[in-house]
Amino acid sequence: MMIILREQAQKEQVDKLVQRLQNVPLTVRLIQHDGHVVLGLTGDTSKIDVEHLKTHTIVKDVKRIKEPFKRANRKFHPQDSVVKVQNARFGQGDFSIIGGPCTVENEEQLMLCAQQVKKAGADVLRGGAFKPRTSPYSFQGLGKEGIKLLVQAKKEVGLPIVTELMDISQLDLFDDVDIVQVGARNMQNYELLKELGKIKKPVLLKRGLSSTLDELLMSAEYILSGGNEEVILCERGIRTFETRTRCTLDVSAVPLLKSLSHLPVIVDPSHALGMSKMVLPMSLASVAAGADGLMIEVHPCPNEALCDGGQALLPSTFSELVEKVKKIKSVL
Amino acid sequence: MMIILREQAQKEQVDKLVQRLQNVPLTVRLIQHDGHVVLGLTGDTSKIDVEHLKTHTIVKDVKRIKEPFKRANRKFHPQDSVVKVQNARFGQGDFSIIGGPCTVENEEQLMLCAQQVKKAGADVLRGGAFKPRTSPYSFQGLGKEGIKLLVQAKKEVGLPIVTELMDISQLDLFDDVDIVQVGARNMQNYELLKELGKIKKPVLLKRGLSSTLDELLMSAEYILSGGNEEVILCERGIRTFETRTRCTLDVSAVPLLKSLSHLPVIVDPSHALGMSKMVLPMSLASVAAGADGLMIEVHPCPNEALCDGGQALLPSTFSELVEKVKKIKSVL
Amino acid sequence: MMIILREQAQKEQVDKLVQRLQNVPLTVRLIQHDGHVVLGLTGDTSKIDVEHLKTHTIVKDVKRIKEPFKRANRKFHPQDSVVKVQNARFGQGDFSIIGGPCTVENEEQLMLCAQQVKKAGADVLRGGAFKPRTSPYSFQGLGKEGIKLLVQAKKEVGLPIVTELMDISQLDLFDDVDIVQVGARNMQNYELLKELGKIKKPVLLKRGLSSTLDELLMSAEYILSGGNEEVILCERGIRTFETRTRCTLDVSAVPLLKSLSHLPVIVDPSHALGMSKMVLPMSLASVAAGADGLMIEVHPCPNEALCDGGQALLPSTFSELVEKVKKIKSVL
Amino acid sequence: MMIILREQAQKEQVDKLVQRLQNVPLTVRLIQHDGHVVLGLTGDTSKIDVEHLKTHTIVKDVKRIKEPFKRANRKFHPQDSVVKVQNARFGQGDFSIIGGPCTVENEEQLMLCAQQVKKAGADVLRGGAFKPRTSPYSFQGLGKEGIKLLVQAKKEVGLPIVTELMDISQLDLFDDVDIVQVGARNMQNYELLKELGKIKKPVLLKRGLSSTLDELLMSAEYILSGGNEEVILCERGIRTFETRTRCTLDVSAVPLLKSLSHLPVIVDPSHALGMSKMVLPMSLASVAAGADGLMIEVHPCPNEALCDGGQALLPSTFSELVEKVKKIKSVL
Repeated sequence: MMIILREQAQKEQVDKLVQRLQNVPLTVRLIQHDGHVVLGLTGDTSKIDVEHLKTHTIVKDVKRIKEPFKRANRKFHPQDSVVKVQNARFGQGDFSIIGGPCTVENEEQLMLCAQQVKKAGADVLRGGAFKPRTSPYSFQGLGKEGIKLLVQAKKEVGLPIVTELMDISQLDLFDDVDIVQVGARNMQNYELLKELGKIKKPVLLKRGLSSTLDELLMSAEYILSGGNEEVILCERGIRTFETRTRCTLDVSAVPLLKSLSHLPVIVDPSHALGMSKMVLPMSLASVAAGADGLMIEVHPCPNEALCDGGQALLPSTFSELVEKVKKIKSVL
Repeated sequence: MMIILREQAQKEQVDKLVQRLQNVPLTVRLIQHDGHVVLGLTGDTSKIDVEHLKTHTIVKDVKRIKEPFKRANRKFHPQDSVVKVQNARFGQGDFSIIGGPCTVENEEQLMLCAQQVKKAGADVLRGGAFKPRTSPYSFQGLGKEGIKLLVQAKKEVGLPIVTELMDISQLDLFDDVDIVQVGARNMQNYELLKELGKIKKPVLLKRGLSSTLDELLMSAEYILSGGNEEVILCERGIRTFETRTRCTLDVSAVPLLKSLSHLPVIVDPSHALGMSKMVLPMSLASVAAGADGLMIEVHPCPNEALCDGGQALLPSTFSELVEKVKKIKSVL
Repeated sequence: MMIILREQAQKEQVDKLVQRLQNVPLTVRLIQHDGHVVLGLTGDTSKIDVEHLKTHTIVKDVKRIKEPFKRANRKFHPQDSVVKVQNARFGQGDFSIIGGPCTVENEEQLMLCAQQVKKAGADVLRGGAFKPRTSPYSFQGLGKEGIKLLVQAKKEVGLPIVTELMDISQLDLFDDVDIVQVGARNMQNYELLKELGKIKKPVLLKRGLSSTLDELLMSAEYILSGGNEEVILCERGIRTFETRTRCTLDVSAVPLLKSLSHLPVIVDPSHALGMSKMVLPMSLASVAAGADGLMIEVHPCPNEALCDGGQALLPSTFSELVEKVKKIKSVL
Repeated sequence: MMIILREQAQKEQVDKLVQRLQNVPLTVRLIQHDGHVVLGLTGDTSKIDVEHLKTHTIVKDVKRIKEPFKRANRKFHPQDSVVKVQNARFGQGDFSIIGGPCTVENEEQLMLCAQQVKKAGADVLRGGAFKPRTSPYSFQGLGKEGIKLLVQAKKEVGLPIVTELMDISQLDLFDDVDIVQVGARNMQNYELLKELGKIKKPVLLKRGLSSTLDELLMSAEYILSGGNEEVILCERGIRTFETRTRCTLDVSAVPLLKSLSHLPVIVDPSHALGMSKMVLPMSLASVAAGADGLMIEVHPCPNEALCDGGQALLPSTFSELVEKVKKIKSVL
């Protein structure tokens, strides 16, 4: 880390700052450059809060040289990490597909959908029981009952399940859930992340709506540093100025995250764009960019003519998607 | 609410959607316009999840006519709400200032600062005990011990206190805290908001880093609809492309929020910009725009030459700010 | 178009607004809905400036039902348009690759690079002669001399050329240029677009750094409505909060633009991310998402060990990219 | 400037880069720090294109120490610059108000408005003759005829005039225009800026919709370095995620720009928010934050009951605004 001090910085102030940094403890070296004092720091700079340091009166700017994430950092773990759940494998060249409904609505819907996505080739079943909603007046999901139905579907069709946890207090209900999902709005819910660092099951961590990749990796670091090494990163769209889509899917997050980190990276194109017709092209794009998996909304629809589709795919379209994804994978 | 259907929408599909909406229950009226069917909805549309509805196959677009927030809506509460804590009053023409250190560091620092801000004219003492940090390796605050020191300062100087709650599990520690702060990263932590709807003390709700004003008001609605009517909204800067400052303080949020809602609106210019020299002009701007209060970081500094300043003001500068704010208030 | 009026709108005001709209001329129908008057407009609403209309005292909101772009609209031209330049063809299933240096530096560099990209399979040669630079002190390109070198390269290797026009006054120099590029910063330079509507050669229109897709299409509409039907749209990255890359490549722009418009859509992944190692994965992603072409920076490098690479690819890497792109195309 | 090289950088590559930088010419010093080579550059680094340098294979990051703008830099011109046009003065404590209609519509409207704003206390008359419009089908302004009417109004009421120039080719028509406005969409139209560097009249430079303050200052630098020292910077709102307003007025741009530069800074709250009721509070906020002037839309309205208001103020409201602004100025 290099700290560029202001030209006006007085010796007394510089000495005091250096002393503080040495207490972190860090080795500090003073470099005189072009009228400025630059402090070169060596040691474990991960404890330094750069945003805070930047506000120091005599500090003009701070430049990290080493990334602040350690356990998530590919530099220290050059090998791809792989997260395995039953037959599903994410990372190290392995690619898996998560499919299922946005929301668990009732037993019939879920069981039918579970069978359909399994048949189409999905490796994991998804379904929302606790739903984060902008409005307190909107349906908040089946909650506990939804989890029970997911566990029942897991037994019936033999697919591992993933569902979202919204608060630590719900953790007891997740005993039979295979992968715990952290939603975009909770990506920086640090108390939740700390608790998930203590459990012994994979966490699917979704990127916040306006988060940088470094922020996503720092949130993963909370889980990893707690002792849980099974983290799957998930790109799910970022907020931009585009009004035609709900969010903008940042496909470039895939190769960038994979160059910075050893963790598996998957993509959720259904939520990102909010349009079923965008799901296929953006799934193929994500695979071509190197994603380790996909998370796709599928809705069972016995009477297709009346089905509302929306951002979910029909099981038949999902089946086609799985086939096309395999073809792209084969030529990469 | 008006739902504009696609030109291709078939009668069978339209009928099914209308039937569903009537079950909400809502009154649906079909309007034929320029080759499109438009559904005009009357009734309590607050339960409708517009984002979800927009993804429906036959839906081209959805336009809310009534705001989705009810209890926070000025339309239904034309009078300003006022939040009172001891001598501090926010709203209905009353203006109060919250001052104190970013983080509770130790007894000496806090007691000194508490006396200084009281003397300068602050109405409420602030101080962080639980600190949300991007990195798990950064100092996470004194926690429980910090709360104790705040309560001690409250008794010593006689100012009510405000501090941040990061998780429901910490609520027990907040018995003697006067105002519970919800940080920007928890603005959409809905489980937390629901719990705060059940308590009997004011909540200071900070705007999320990339949240719209409607989202902020919907989060307030979670608290209000739970039965807690004492919510103070706080603008604290939004993420933009500007690199010179940490965030961009959105001063226009003040008059906009006040036209949409009856809730008091305050501004935190210290965190927003991360530069002490911006605090005074942006405080004056906020007051001129109609803010009901300010939240200012102040750091005690016996030896000014060595003080690091940063985004915090010295007590003397804070004192000047209080004077200038009063002058602006007097001419408005 | 539907115009939702405020509840307070008075009959006299409504009448006056209706009268004005009828003069556009448009057919206006008054719909009473839930306490609001809604004006339903039929006719050519493309002349209406929605942003302006929204500021009208009695207007609460405006909702376009028909897109404001006509000639660029797929609805009125269901067939893909194709832009042909010698052997290069963009659109209608045809895919072409543009390659070459960021900037024309000198004869040796350009001729060598032209031969290399031709050999690797490029269909069009690119190279910057007029360079838009943030700083007036930076090198502004070879200008007229650069155009001459491009024309020479065109003759020597037999590839059509594309280069950027920064001002109408430079148009005389573009007689032998095959495709005129409009840069991101000039996407809304309307006087320039009007002039390009009058010429008889293809225009490659780059998306602005923070433009929506509708804005891009409206800028294309300026060219099309002037009489020039040969417009190629180019996604080149948008500004986001990500700090690791220069811009964020919006791959989803490809399927979205292609669903809204019949115009060919290509992607420039080199400029967007500013990192050569991102060019291959993002090129493949763009192709998988349905792009009609790619624009890739290539830099000749006789002595590879010393080459600076940057965002440009080495000719050998470019050659690999062309091969992989073909493979992806073959399985789509 | 400091250039942090990658750990893998080879001596041969470093030598080559150093050699190139020395040719700029710059003095380069090699600093070994924590496994990295850091190049410390001294001299005129304004010619360095940092974005380009960052893409160099061996460069990890680049940190400017000195700002890239020189003539606009307060460091080299500690005194405020002042721009004077007749009785209007912007800067060095002087504050002026520009008022007038958004668009010149006809003689009657403009003459009436000119008299009204003059009477209310405006120092400069504004009015759009050439209008940048998203759609080619929208009214593009009266053009040449509009300029003539402005010049006529100038003579009749004795106020200097400001109007927007959209292309160099229109410059001949601006002989009697006192201040040439560059619109937000042309902020980075560098050929236009170069030409305006050669004229002898003030330029009002509006900030681009998504531009950083450094980019705005670099655009001002184009004009200043051409020899024209009379530049007024104008904050007019930036694009954010907020949907309630057209743009978000960045009031913090005022104190930030004034700390970075000696140029006068004014604010246009009318266009930024697109709502007349926001104009007063945001004008007062801008003044409190230290603005050197305001640019306000005013529309004459003989029959107030039928006036459309919109983002423009009625002359009477404008008059009140001028009074309140004076009060705020008096207590600062």
